[in-house]
Amino acid sequence: AGDSSAGQQKSAACMACHGADGKAAAPIYPNLAGQNEAYLGLALHAYKTGARSGGQAEVMKAFVAGLSDEDIDDLAAYYAGLKP
Amino acid sequence: AGDSSAGQQKSAACMACHGADGKAAAPIYPNLAGQNEAYLGLALHAYKTGARSGGQAEVMKAFVAGLSDEDIDDLAAYYAGLKP
Repeated sequence: AGDSSAGQQKSAACMACHGADGKAAAPIYPNLAGQNEAYLGLALHAYKTGARSGGQAEVMKAFVAGLSDEDIDDLAAYYAGLKP
Repeated sequence: AGDSSAGQQKSAACMACHGADGKAAAPIYPNLAGQNEAYLGLALHAYKTGARSGGQAEVMKAFVAGLSDEDIDDLAAYYAGLKP
């Protein structure tokens, strides 16, 4: 599993849409706080590989492109650990 | 906005993966309880139109194909209203 404190360090770019506490800044974006860690990792990998595409996935692809697998695991651990 | 009690009636097919209380039955599926209503509606419409594809979206497309716009609004209201 990822390292949630490392994930917090890496979450600066995510905050604009997903909020500083994992509660989305706008209702068309998903809350991430308390979401399943495995699901978050799977979704981020799907954006990275392009398996998820269309709609808001196109936005996410840009954010995820530069993330390593370790970054993805850490971010998934960080958001899963936040209180919903 | 949708009618959450109508949404509850329509959620039988969703429970297998998303849980009776909106907490996913398996960690690779997303929790829906307390998710943003607008995001849920947007995601369901994207599955219905095929705008979201690939990965687990292919599973969701099958479940969403038969839903009307009103069904989608009601389900989004139902899950958004559940306690995360």
